[in-house]
Amino acid sequence: MSHGAGGRAMADLVAGIFRDAFANEFLEQGNDQASLPIPAGGRMVMTTDGYVVSPLFFPGGNIGALAVHGTINDIAMAGARPLYLSASFIIEEGFPLADLQRIAGSMGQASRETGVPVVTGDTKVVERGKADGVFIATAGVGLVPEGLALSGDRAEPGDVVILSGSIGDHGVAIMSSRENLAFETAILSDCAALHGLVAAMVDAAGPHLKLMRDPTRGGLAATLNELAHQSGVGFRIQEAAIPVKPQVAAACELLGLDPLFVANEGKLVAVVAEAGADALLAAMRAHPLGREAAVIGHAVADDQRFVQMTTAFGGGRIVDWLSGEQLPRIC
Amino acid sequence: MSHGAGGRAMADLVAGIFRDAFANEFLEQGNDQASLPIPAGGRMVMTTDGYVVSPLFFPGGNIGALAVHGTINDIAMAGARPLYLSASFIIEEGFPLADLQRIAGSMGQASRETGVPVVTGDTKVVERGKADGVFIATAGVGLVPEGLALSGDRAEPGDVVILSGSIGDHGVAIMSSRENLAFETAILSDCAALHGLVAAMVDAAGPHLKLMRDPTRGGLAATLNELAHQSGVGFRIQEAAIPVKPQVAAACELLGLDPLFVANEGKLVAVVAEAGADALLAAMRAHPLGREAAVIGHAVADDQRFVQMTTAFGGGRIVDWLSGEQLPRIC
Repeated sequence: MSHGAGGRAMADLVAGIFRDAFANEFLEQGNDQASLPIPAGGRMVMTTDGYVVSPLFFPGGNIGALAVHGTINDIAMAGARPLYLSASFIIEEGFPLADLQRIAGSMGQASRETGVPVVTGDTKVVERGKADGVFIATAGVGLVPEGLALSGDRAEPGDVVILSGSIGDHGVAIMSSRENLAFETAILSDCAALHGLVAAMVDAAGPHLKLMRDPTRGGLAATLNELAHQSGVGFRIQEAAIPVKPQVAAACELLGLDPLFVANEGKLVAVVAEAGADALLAAMRAHPLGREAAVIGHAVADDQRFVQMTTAFGGGRIVDWLSGEQLPRIC
Repeated sequence: MSHGAGGRAMADLVAGIFRDAFANEFLEQGNDQASLPIPAGGRMVMTTDGYVVSPLFFPGGNIGALAVHGTINDIAMAGARPLYLSASFIIEEGFPLADLQRIAGSMGQASRETGVPVVTGDTKVVERGKADGVFIATAGVGLVPEGLALSGDRAEPGDVVILSGSIGDHGVAIMSSRENLAFETAILSDCAALHGLVAAMVDAAGPHLKLMRDPTRGGLAATLNELAHQSGVGFRIQEAAIPVKPQVAAACELLGLDPLFVANEGKLVAVVAEAGADALLAAMRAHPLGREAAVIGHAVADDQRFVQMTTAFGGGRIVDWLSGEQLPRIC
């Protein structure tokens, strides 16, 4: 418990691990806040997310990379260029410093690869048994170009729904690792930062692009229901059009999960006016993170705001929100 | 465990408690990020803090008000006008919704009183025993006026050190409440937002003002040592000049605490060039949160960066950082 209470030990911990891992000119200012240039023009977006994923290390990532990518993605979904991140750590007493170093190192790597610095941070330590290893809360700010106003309430009947790639990878990777399942083909989390893909999409579709959202907790089903609710429309989607990796589909069967409800950490759903759909799809497929992009359906007028799916067998079903919890602590 | 996993129950929880408590146009956008206007000119500051205070409710405040005030203060210490806050909640399964409502209500009130909206948020729920009630991580951004560049590395020999008021109130309020101590006079946390006081200080001292910092964890002792280290100077302070409320001094004796090391949540230390000290002190004393402001010492050339104090009895002592932990989970 000697880290985290304003003593010298804490200062050494912060200097030793986080400053090294996140090294950048802003963090090096050494104040309780970072002083940052802001580009002129446009609007700012701000977002925050808490990460409580269990286990902390999983196939394809860990809580640190997840925190950086997830917050960048929430910024990017507004069509914004991510500028700066903050990170707050709540650490359980006795948590191995080597694990903290791995997590910080992974965040630093994600930050360098994406070009989005972690400019300020905080560390608190709580007694053993009062937290579960480490929790991370990240916040981020970004800049939306002048004239762009993507928002979840902008879907209109006739708009096309495009999904950037296969669903269920992240949730299944976490669950397999929790249940100690080994599949013939390793299933990795799709944890990735989507701001590069988003920039290409904004360029390609311009004003035709209405909104984007990343289907994390609750999966594609929750995201489409949220958007239906927010925009006051329904969605009609085709199961056969939704990419699911064969090994993920098999694991879902085994685990009793429906991929529609399973979390993703490197995918997005876009809603685009029909006139812009072809250009958008082409731009997405040209990007490494959108190679499997597919039109999965469209928005319809529907006062009940239902998400309805034509199944692979030609039947129909309503894709509802889950009323409870399918996969706790998935992110 | 049905809150916090992307299902409808979570959406209801968020809508029902946080949206009501924080009601503002940005949060109502309903996206995973808030779209915000940014004033032209100046630099942006960004900060974050995790709050793990125990108990969650204490005399003079609670974790919610603390999170809002603390983050506003970290922004204000840069001389910045706080613009926007984000809030991330990690909640233990079974935590009473009534307590969550009280905390959210208190954050909403602090947000309205200070004029700084909580524009975006996130909620995660972890299993019983995997967190302690609720943890909150807030982040904030603010705007520093053009030309102002306060920083912890700017103290120079001869500069004057001013403290805005009495020390130790917050830490002693928490400890008394933890130990179930009842004193004749109630000791309340000094939890308060300092951005109004800071604006008056910036106006009064102009370029003479070198830096400000709020002595939270580790108290005045940790803050002065941090600043000495960052600026490469020493500090000489006078114990008799440091305001300590009689009931706080008495409680510290009883609890075996030194007020110099006890956390504050509504106080600041300013370092100002001698030419601006009188004007700054007068401006601080004219503000409700600076009525007891006092010159407590000055910076000196000292390669060893020592903080030395002339005691009330005329002796001298070195005020070191604590090597370990005095008061865990004080904020």
